[in-house]
Amino acid sequence: MRSRLLRTLLLLIFAGNSAISQTKPRARDLGVPFDGTPGTLNAITDVKGVEVGHTTLISGSGKLKVGEGPVRTGVTAILPRGKDSKEAVFGAWFTLNGNGEMTGTTWVEDSGFVDGPIMITNTHSVGVVRDAVIAWKVKRGEPDMEAYWWSLPVVAETWDGYLNDINGFHVKPEHVFHALDSAHSGAVEEGNVGGGTGMICNEFKGGIGTASRVLDAKSGGYTVGVLVQCNYGRRDQLRIAGVPVGKEIPEHPAYGDDVGSIIVAVATDAPLIPTQLKRIARKVSLGLGRMGSYSGDDSGDIFIAFSTANPGAITPKGIHDLKMLPNDQLDPLFLATVQATEEAVVNAMVAAETMTGINDRTVIALPHDRLREALKKYNRLTK
Amino acid sequence: MRSRLLRTLLLLIFAGNSAISQTKPRARDLGVPFDGTPGTLNAITDVKGVEVGHTTLISGSGKLKVGEGPVRTGVTAILPRGKDSKEAVFGAWFTLNGNGEMTGTTWVEDSGFVDGPIMITNTHSVGVVRDAVIAWKVKRGEPDMEAYWWSLPVVAETWDGYLNDINGFHVKPEHVFHALDSAHSGAVEEGNVGGGTGMICNEFKGGIGTASRVLDAKSGGYTVGVLVQCNYGRRDQLRIAGVPVGKEIPEHPAYGDDVGSIIVAVATDAPLIPTQLKRIARKVSLGLGRMGSYSGDDSGDIFIAFSTANPGAITPKGIHDLKMLPNDQLDPLFLATVQATEEAVVNAMVAAETMTGINDRTVIALPHDRLREALKKYNRLTK
Amino acid sequence: MRSRLLRTLLLLIFAGNSAISQTKPRARDLGVPFDGTPGTLNAITDVKGVEVGHTTLISGSGKLKVGEGPVRTGVTAILPRGKDSKEAVFGAWFTLNGNGEMTGTTWVEDSGFVDGPIMITNTHSVGVVRDAVIAWKVKRGEPDMEAYWWSLPVVAETWDGYLNDINGFHVKPEHVFHALDSAHSGAVEEGNVGGGTGMICNEFKGGIGTASRVLDAKSGGYTVGVLVQCNYGRRDQLRIAGVPVGKEIPEHPAYGDDVGSIIVAVATDAPLIPTQLKRIARKVSLGLGRMGSYSGDDSGDIFIAFSTANPGAITPKGIHDLKMLPNDQLDPLFLATVQATEEAVVNAMVAAETMTGINDRTVIALPHDRLREALKKYNRLTK
Amino acid sequence: MRSRLLRTLLLLIFAGNSAISQTKPRARDLGVPFDGTPGTLNAITDVKGVEVGHTTLISGSGKLKVGEGPVRTGVTAILPRGKDSKEAVFGAWFTLNGNGEMTGTTWVEDSGFVDGPIMITNTHSVGVVRDAVIAWKVKRGEPDMEAYWWSLPVVAETWDGYLNDINGFHVKPEHVFHALDSAHSGAVEEGNVGGGTGMICNEFKGGIGTASRVLDAKSGGYTVGVLVQCNYGRRDQLRIAGVPVGKEIPEHPAYGDDVGSIIVAVATDAPLIPTQLKRIARKVSLGLGRMGSYSGDDSGDIFIAFSTANPGAITPKGIHDLKMLPNDQLDPLFLATVQATEEAVVNAMVAAETMTGINDRTVIALPHDRLREALKKYNRLTK
Repeated sequence: MRSRLLRTLLLLIFAGNSAISQTKPRARDLGVPFDGTPGTLNAITDVKGVEVGHTTLISGSGKLKVGEGPVRTGVTAILPRGKDSKEAVFGAWFTLNGNGEMTGTTWVEDSGFVDGPIMITNTHSVGVVRDAVIAWKVKRGEPDMEAYWWSLPVVAETWDGYLNDINGFHVKPEHVFHALDSAHSGAVEEGNVGGGTGMICNEFKGGIGTASRVLDAKSGGYTVGVLVQCNYGRRDQLRIAGVPVGKEIPEHPAYGDDVGSIIVAVATDAPLIPTQLKRIARKVSLGLGRMGSYSGDDSGDIFIAFSTANPGAITPKGIHDLKMLPNDQLDPLFLATVQATEEAVVNAMVAAETMTGINDRTVIALPHDRLREALKKYNRLTK
Repeated sequence: MRSRLLRTLLLLIFAGNSAISQTKPRARDLGVPFDGTPGTLNAITDVKGVEVGHTTLISGSGKLKVGEGPVRTGVTAILPRGKDSKEAVFGAWFTLNGNGEMTGTTWVEDSGFVDGPIMITNTHSVGVVRDAVIAWKVKRGEPDMEAYWWSLPVVAETWDGYLNDINGFHVKPEHVFHALDSAHSGAVEEGNVGGGTGMICNEFKGGIGTASRVLDAKSGGYTVGVLVQCNYGRRDQLRIAGVPVGKEIPEHPAYGDDVGSIIVAVATDAPLIPTQLKRIARKVSLGLGRMGSYSGDDSGDIFIAFSTANPGAITPKGIHDLKMLPNDQLDPLFLATVQATEEAVVNAMVAAETMTGINDRTVIALPHDRLREALKKYNRLTK
Repeated sequence: MRSRLLRTLLLLIFAGNSAISQTKPRARDLGVPFDGTPGTLNAITDVKGVEVGHTTLISGSGKLKVGEGPVRTGVTAILPRGKDSKEAVFGAWFTLNGNGEMTGTTWVEDSGFVDGPIMITNTHSVGVVRDAVIAWKVKRGEPDMEAYWWSLPVVAETWDGYLNDINGFHVKPEHVFHALDSAHSGAVEEGNVGGGTGMICNEFKGGIGTASRVLDAKSGGYTVGVLVQCNYGRRDQLRIAGVPVGKEIPEHPAYGDDVGSIIVAVATDAPLIPTQLKRIARKVSLGLGRMGSYSGDDSGDIFIAFSTANPGAITPKGIHDLKMLPNDQLDPLFLATVQATEEAVVNAMVAAETMTGINDRTVIALPHDRLREALKKYNRLTK
Repeated sequence: MRSRLLRTLLLLIFAGNSAISQTKPRARDLGVPFDGTPGTLNAITDVKGVEVGHTTLISGSGKLKVGEGPVRTGVTAILPRGKDSKEAVFGAWFTLNGNGEMTGTTWVEDSGFVDGPIMITNTHSVGVVRDAVIAWKVKRGEPDMEAYWWSLPVVAETWDGYLNDINGFHVKPEHVFHALDSAHSGAVEEGNVGGGTGMICNEFKGGIGTASRVLDAKSGGYTVGVLVQCNYGRRDQLRIAGVPVGKEIPEHPAYGDDVGSIIVAVATDAPLIPTQLKRIARKVSLGLGRMGSYSGDDSGDIFIAFSTANPGAITPKGIHDLKMLPNDQLDPLFLATVQATEEAVVNAMVAAETMTGINDRTVIALPHDRLREALKKYNRLTK
């Protein structure tokens, strides 16, 4: 059905290279005001152990021919304890609006664990990514093949069919392996990369964004990191730092409707049990609220949170010793989640670049100068 | 334990009088910008049939003597189809943060109906209000006493123990009857009334607030009305219309913590089924997000939504003919919910007046002039 | 409205006296086969620390006069760590069918704790019991009255209006205090006691029942105890030990419909976190399945599970050291929950005695001899 | 990695042929007593419009070579309105124990619709099946490729790795297309077919089973049909018609543990809205309870229910006229769901045949004569 040659040719993989992302300004570099203290990288990878990898697929141009392109898509892998660990993390999830998919969540809900990577891709490639995660585990010799072993991977999606030949199924198992194998700590590439390649956010070009917060010592010094694949929102609702930026920059809207979605992963090193992580996941909604989202019917706004504390908790034998932060100490983590979500979304839009996809459709990047003008007009520009 | 005389003396009931509330400015009168088109009253009662009643209890001053006062509390009743109807409405609920109570929700969840009034009071009076709602129904001859009849009232709460002798249990059945019997259509009293009497919002005086939105004809012309009992939030997080008002008015914070809660009721005349109303209830979170909330651990942020369409749907016999708006047409209702929630919270703070309660604790009202100054500083003042 | 004299006269309190209950045969004494190993008492109190107290209200006879009687009702208190402890337990809840009430569950869900007693009463007395639990805590000096203290009690119900003047509101705060103050370890009174006084189960007389299971040493030696307030079910569906007992004893059905409910509390000393306790609560359904239940529309089948392990987990300060049993070791606890639920329901029916209530309505006890005959007919009698 | 020749050779497709299944005895033919009245076929296809298709993959024998076989797996497709309809149905889902996968449920939950087929396969082929359902829709020209179209297929699984080379990923898109394209009304093949090919139930050979109930005219005459992919349970817990069959036939247990799962689909033509269908889905638990299940930690017990009434409800335009059965009339449907679930599980075991899979592991079929002996011993044999 598809030419293997084409597939090879179109594969442009931007391997995770932290140098790249550092040369681009991020939201706070442009003078957007945010509260709270970010970590060193202002990224989900500020949570020790977390690694992120992307496979980015961009090829072809012009008229859509289903199966041939143009291709504007990819896969992003988040490995809660890094790719060399086979250790699960405590986790939980929440859906603000359910027009989307995150596989594996039935067991996340009941077990309290995320056992394996969290993958994000396009809507119609969730299946291939899911089974490829199992194949990747098999390749690594993870399971005892003759024993009772199974895997229920966590794979989420947003829809890139406005720019990408989504019904051409261009994501292949090798792209999944690459995203996993190239995952790394350090800076995280943002914008038109990985699963976020063809995404649209508030009718500007969207994609991957990340941010983090570090709590003060009194609150335990924990880190909260957020990564978003940002594809939601209607231009005229967009608020940045409270400023009605969407109304200030009305030009070139993409659809005039909220047909997108957003996947949010929240990582922390705070010792939280699943009940607490579910609450963290729910608070992501408030970060989107700050941005002006109304979470439209077509949106799959699905959030997952995990804690890298308590290694060993999934070991089947013995009785486990856990650490747990009391509920009374969760507020700084809740606030950090809201703040980091807000900044990660803005970072995604700031990093993304104007893209032309199928049928020569173009989605413009959030113009940095116009963003600064809008912030200045409302006396919110910090630099 | 308590003197009946005292109780009688302290009972100051502000009967629902629409004239009173109209003399006070509301948020948009002060120049706060809001999106969307409000209904005639900019109140939950813009949804035809909805009635609201309050019983307000204010008495005593000075040192707390448990059981004697000072008293700063009350009860608010929302009657989805008015007090003369025994007809249920389709309904659904959602919890953003669960440190609170809303009774009756197990059956709301499973039946898809709110069958009776929605009551809001203080945390330690939920029980008396609940049983009194049943007694009120019995008094009205609603049930066939010898048949299989029971009632599972919906009663929610927020905590007013900073200003009120909450452990004195001052709410009595007669106060519940009064709130129900005095419920009315028309303008809704806001601020220090009903269940909201002793409440605190973003460390300003809070209480009851309401707002509404009317959809344009193309979107069906439906009305969405919101009523909040507003007791949540930390001053330094407060945003109004995106402006960091809390930071601009740092004086006289109440606690320096988020120990409150917020109850939100959303009414609409759009023909929604319970699955859809649950989504409406969830969107309330986004309105609170706009206000800067992080929904702290101590907060009971519980929302309930109902539709006055489809009368007769609870009738036990026959097969019912329902109307249902398609999911694809929900977006204007989602947006209206977010907008009306945002405005109702601001209306609560604008209407509430400085109050001194137990142990001479004082919580200041949001100063209107300072609010205008803050909006002006950030170029957001509309008048 | 009601005579205080009458109220005093009607108050027949069967104080918790283990001697009484021991003289009555229990289900396995009658030859009903059950799997698994019960604890010493075959009761929820086999879980160390758990105490149970009942207040039983029986008075009057003949024609219903609302507010005067006849009265056939009460209150049951389960104190997870005993009445002298102010320490919470990890907990979780589940609803199989939601036509009922269990207050406090919004915070159980979100906090992962049951903080205080679990109370069970009739449907229309939930409110008075709820507020009385707060009053009881206040009386005991639990809170710092001037600080930020509130309580969200857990109170559940089933409907006894077939036998009891339920709209007369005969449960009073003092009855609640008595149930709490008289709670004790040791044998648990079953049948027509406490909240179960006027209940009906599978159209036989129902009420309170209890049972327990002890795991073998290989599985950790943990105890699972169950207490039910049993008011559900239709005669013709009743299975006991797989035998269609309901069809074998068709005489004197109560209503010919499933208009009842069942509240189930599951206690364990196994170190489970809330996510795991939610799974335990859900398994209760399978015990009811064994009994033939179809959980009718009118039924409030609501279950709560708690673990007495991990004392101190609710303390607001510090980081807590928890113990957690791995998920892979939960199966024996799941099975014990199912088995103990099944036996507790049968115990309730075996212990309950024929009762005549309002309007001379009589509900017959499950006739022991007929039960034995039915078991014998199907070759299931063990003795 | 895998030989295409092998793959072709191993593909033994038992096309849906109602003649085949009719020659095998079903549970009630063997004298197992069941309550209620089945439909003509005693199958999910008694609900008008429902079609079922299977692709069965059996090839190879002997030692496991990952990627080569032996293969004992397949795919089952349930099409709520038949393969020629593109019309969604109202639907809802429930998880009794979450160690499993059912994709698409986030949107089922929020939209209230099942939009497309319900697929069941093995755990490690969920992904390929999911994306292939989208490809099948694309092939059929369902979407407007250039517009905003996406699909979130419902695909569930149970684990067949005890008999099947599950990590060889033998299910391919063409197998999915075949299951869909060969779906038919009429009798449903049971036992070792489709997704059920390599499944194990109560340590006997399991697989696909189905049953139905027809309500009497007084209850509306509706039909409830159930289809199970049955892979759960521990032998010693197995009860059939209340008889401890598992204990009576202890020989040749498969694992001595509950490592399986069960997927249950419930269809009805009763006009139920999603809130009501969720309750139907939850009642499936009670059917499993009757069978003795304790729903072990390793089990993915996931249920989905849909109603074929109310065609057109998903149409994006206009306001829809729906029919809804009142909650008060749900009891016969609840009972039918419980009864049909119970019978479908027994039918799966009765139909399944002894199978030898990887590494010459053999799982015995439930011996019909021994089943009859056990029923007779406990006086439950009907013929």
